[in-house]
Amino acid sequence: MPLLVVGSVAFDSVETPHASRERVLGGSAVFFSYSASYFSTVRLVGAVGDDWPGEYTKMLQARQIDTAGLQVISGSKTFFWRGKYLPNMNDRETKEVQLNVLEQFDPVLPESYRRCQYLFLANGAPAMQIRVLEQLPGATLTVADTMDLWIRETHGEVLDLLKRVDGLVLNDAEAKLLTKDENLVRAGHAILKMGPKFVIIKKGEHGAMFFSERETYVLPAYPTIDLVDPTGAGDSFAGGMMGFLAEQGNIEPKTLKTAMAYGTVTASFTVEDFSLDRLKKIEREDIERRMEEYRAMLSF
Amino acid sequence: MPLLVVGSVAFDSVETPHASRERVLGGSAVFFSYSASYFSTVRLVGAVGDDWPGEYTKMLQARQIDTAGLQVISGSKTFFWRGKYLPNMNDRETKEVQLNVLEQFDPVLPESYRRCQYLFLANGAPAMQIRVLEQLPGATLTVADTMDLWIRETHGEVLDLLKRVDGLVLNDAEAKLLTKDENLVRAGHAILKMGPKFVIIKKGEHGAMFFSERETYVLPAYPTIDLVDPTGAGDSFAGGMMGFLAEQGNIEPKTLKTAMAYGTVTASFTVEDFSLDRLKKIEREDIERRMEEYRAMLSF
Repeated sequence: MPLLVVGSVAFDSVETPHASRERVLGGSAVFFSYSASYFSTVRLVGAVGDDWPGEYTKMLQARQIDTAGLQVISGSKTFFWRGKYLPNMNDRETKEVQLNVLEQFDPVLPESYRRCQYLFLANGAPAMQIRVLEQLPGATLTVADTMDLWIRETHGEVLDLLKRVDGLVLNDAEAKLLTKDENLVRAGHAILKMGPKFVIIKKGEHGAMFFSERETYVLPAYPTIDLVDPTGAGDSFAGGMMGFLAEQGNIEPKTLKTAMAYGTVTASFTVEDFSLDRLKKIEREDIERRMEEYRAMLSF
Repeated sequence: MPLLVVGSVAFDSVETPHASRERVLGGSAVFFSYSASYFSTVRLVGAVGDDWPGEYTKMLQARQIDTAGLQVISGSKTFFWRGKYLPNMNDRETKEVQLNVLEQFDPVLPESYRRCQYLFLANGAPAMQIRVLEQLPGATLTVADTMDLWIRETHGEVLDLLKRVDGLVLNDAEAKLLTKDENLVRAGHAILKMGPKFVIIKKGEHGAMFFSERETYVLPAYPTIDLVDPTGAGDSFAGGMMGFLAEQGNIEPKTLKTAMAYGTVTASFTVEDFSLDRLKKIEREDIERRMEEYRAMLSF
């Protein structure tokens, strides 16, 4: 089943305690699409500016990512983010944000996209996320990400969004902010009451928690020793997860858990280099091999 | 196989964001012994003062814990700890410590204890831990805990200890302090180089990581919704783990991983109430039932 993602396409400048990179390819829709492309065809919706190199589009297309929904806005520039990771490599500071094309990003889906059954709304203004949802009224599975900015400044719209999506993916700090509860297990259950059928709380190096009416579980992160740059890990996790669900074509509880494991493993490759540099070097069989290691790690 | 533990016996005054308790039974050797008692016979070595209520000794004995090594020092008082948990229930501040009997605690093992094959050295001064080790030269498995105080103030002795034990159990902050590395995967491998055959890094609500020359793995914490008081969770984890190993009578890699899972599940009960209050209400079959849930949680 094709999988639709709406999100940011970015140039990232990233500094870690060990190395740094200037203006490398990033953005939620990019990390998501590339990760999902190991599992299913992906339709990408996003916007870039005049400064966007055409070879990036070709590179995405080479992985069967449909870029018909990637708008190039002339007279504008691509979204830019600069961040610095703290020594623990789990927390980071945003040093600079240039919204550029994202200031007026209000995607209208190409006609060919509107019958997609699997939709991921990467982090973005909830009002925009809702307008995208309205263009796909018959989707099988809709999952959204969000962030602290929207929870703080457009709280009512986040709550509206939560009534309309099947799943929410957010990180631990955002879950605590949204629920005013420091206990993640309680926070997960509290978010379920806000509307979605399932909630996934991402804990970075500590893995991810899943909550539905009937299930609560935690999967740890794959313990890679080659942690180079955590940027994109969350979107890569979501991409691997949604890609696997779209490939399987069902959203049964067992499939959802396996999908979370695939997301975890896919993200563990992403963090082993900057940008897409590590993912570019792997094939599906590398994911399968690490998936087997991960499964064995959790068997006793 | 009987299991020997040397550690503290304490009165704890605990404040959490939701409730508090004054002078309840605690201490590393107590949480360890009680947890291990679901799996094997336990021999406890510790010291208490005149203020120690005899019914506590009887309560431990009722769980087949041998208290021949529990010295009552007349004219002295039992170790006292007062702590307060932060809203996240994972971090805590120590508000008051009265060492009391622990000031001169230098255990001489009863003759009947010296042929024990399984030894856990709960947190204590490394010089004392080494003197205990010397009294059990033929042990099959020796595992030690330590803490930031010893790593900072008796660093050389901690390094000595690490050359003499089979395993080290410590928490994430302590592992970072000991190795000066913020990456826990690298920290775990670095500690292996200091001597022990395996290292377990406890991450509180995020579970525990295992490192040996051939294996690296992570097990998440069991996601209990009834988190009341985390005090003793680490010692209860170690107790469940060592208790299971002593019960099985082997330290094969597969047994070690299953033991870590039993430790995780045992600790998940401990945190559901203050002191031993939750553990007192469970039987081995409750641990087995939750173990099955935990196993299912990690299957996909």
